[in-house]
Amino acid sequence: MQRYFIKETYEAKSEYSVAGENYHHIVRVMRMKPEDQLFLVFDNGVVILGEISSIDEQEVLIRELSKEDGDKELPVNVTIACGLPKGDKLEWIIQKGTELGGHGFIGFPAKNSIVKWDHKKRGNKVKRLEKIAQEAAEQSHRQLMPEVRLLEKEQELIDSFSTYEKVLIAYEESAKQGEQSLLAETLKTLKPGGNLLIIFGPEGGFAPEEIDVFKENGGVSCGLGPRILRAETAPLYALSAVSYQLEMLL
Amino acid sequence: MQRYFIKETYEAKSEYSVAGENYHHIVRVMRMKPEDQLFLVFDNGVVILGEISSIDEQEVLIRELSKEDGDKELPVNVTIACGLPKGDKLEWIIQKGTELGGHGFIGFPAKNSIVKWDHKKRGNKVKRLEKIAQEAAEQSHRQLMPEVRLLEKEQELIDSFSTYEKVLIAYEESAKQGEQSLLAETLKTLKPGGNLLIIFGPEGGFAPEEIDVFKENGGVSCGLGPRILRAETAPLYALSAVSYQLEMLL
Repeated sequence: MQRYFIKETYEAKSEYSVAGENYHHIVRVMRMKPEDQLFLVFDNGVVILGEISSIDEQEVLIRELSKEDGDKELPVNVTIACGLPKGDKLEWIIQKGTELGGHGFIGFPAKNSIVKWDHKKRGNKVKRLEKIAQEAAEQSHRQLMPEVRLLEKEQELIDSFSTYEKVLIAYEESAKQGEQSLLAETLKTLKPGGNLLIIFGPEGGFAPEEIDVFKENGGVSCGLGPRILRAETAPLYALSAVSYQLEMLL
Repeated sequence: MQRYFIKETYEAKSEYSVAGENYHHIVRVMRMKPEDQLFLVFDNGVVILGEISSIDEQEVLIRELSKEDGDKELPVNVTIACGLPKGDKLEWIIQKGTELGGHGFIGFPAKNSIVKWDHKKRGNKVKRLEKIAQEAAEQSHRQLMPEVRLLEKEQELIDSFSTYEKVLIAYEESAKQGEQSLLAETLKTLKPGGNLLIIFGPEGGFAPEEIDVFKENGGVSCGLGPRILRAETAPLYALSAVSYQLEMLL
């Protein structure tokens, strides 16, 4: 069934009004009619199953039938920060990473990032990436829409370390050195509601001096197993590992 | 450093001869010269660091300097079987799945598969998929080249169940019902050297009658967490989970 993300906090009402893009999709794309059902996903993660009660020129009115049960979100908020990779890899990381439960996605210019985006370009990119995240969130039945940010400077990322419970750095050299336990050790310490930042390099990987600065600011470098993962594959491994540790190992 | 898969079993020799496609890549693409170094990966998983001793018109002769240490392969052989998905998704599953350690990849026509390939088409497809697997295996420093097969009938897959220690079916309905422990329970029972088959549906998912037949033949259906994963994302989640359980939770 279709899911629509509503940019408001849930509060019990007799009817909910949907306008704008969602209106267009419900009425013009899906051609829904009164009594058709859909999910509304509110900012605060509340999801209701609703039935269309009426449709006019500007808005669709929806009556709540029931709440969606079951939590679809990871028990901890995981933010994935990627040194800007080439081509459409960031789009791709955000689409798959949203399916896998990522809470936020950050692109930042790492030393080895080839792409450089000015302010205007970043603005347009973010809009496009938010659209990809929204579609993936709807398709994968998420209850929260991931936040997408593109940073002008790597330093902004480092300055944000203190806002996270843990900061992990996926570092190929750690993998080559056979470091395979820090990821699990870290995930095991996370409590529901905690937040985790995991940082990934671009194709060229991180420069040693970048790793040093990350570590000086509280980051912990870890491997993601003995195989060398591409820039776009490593974040999916990490999110899958978080899900497995916190949702499957019950 | 470049890795080349050699279709022979390792045995100690004074020099190893490389011809054909690998010769072309070493000499014409990489333009290597005597004394340049590279890795040779043999059929039985032995990897040597070698140095080029001579190059002539047909072959490159390579002298062994040392063996590569450390195991890059998953402790269990995981075969990923996918109901044929649309477009280039299978290419993509095989590229990423090889990075993540998949031992074999099988495409089969599931009830909801839209693509149907005749014998000739399958032959060409397999060649292309093997090339993708080889490139991914080289790039991710694998010690084994994954096997790729495209089946004519789903029954061939079912007939092969008995050759695996465990057969898991990734089933969306299990995920919706909140079944989240069977994957972990199964992975915990696997011993090094064991083999596991994990079956994934195409975009439309499996038909209930397909699941019934899989189960009658010993398959166990399990969820992959509370979010709905696309056909091309689910196999990556499963392979990451296997790696996390068997390589990271030490």
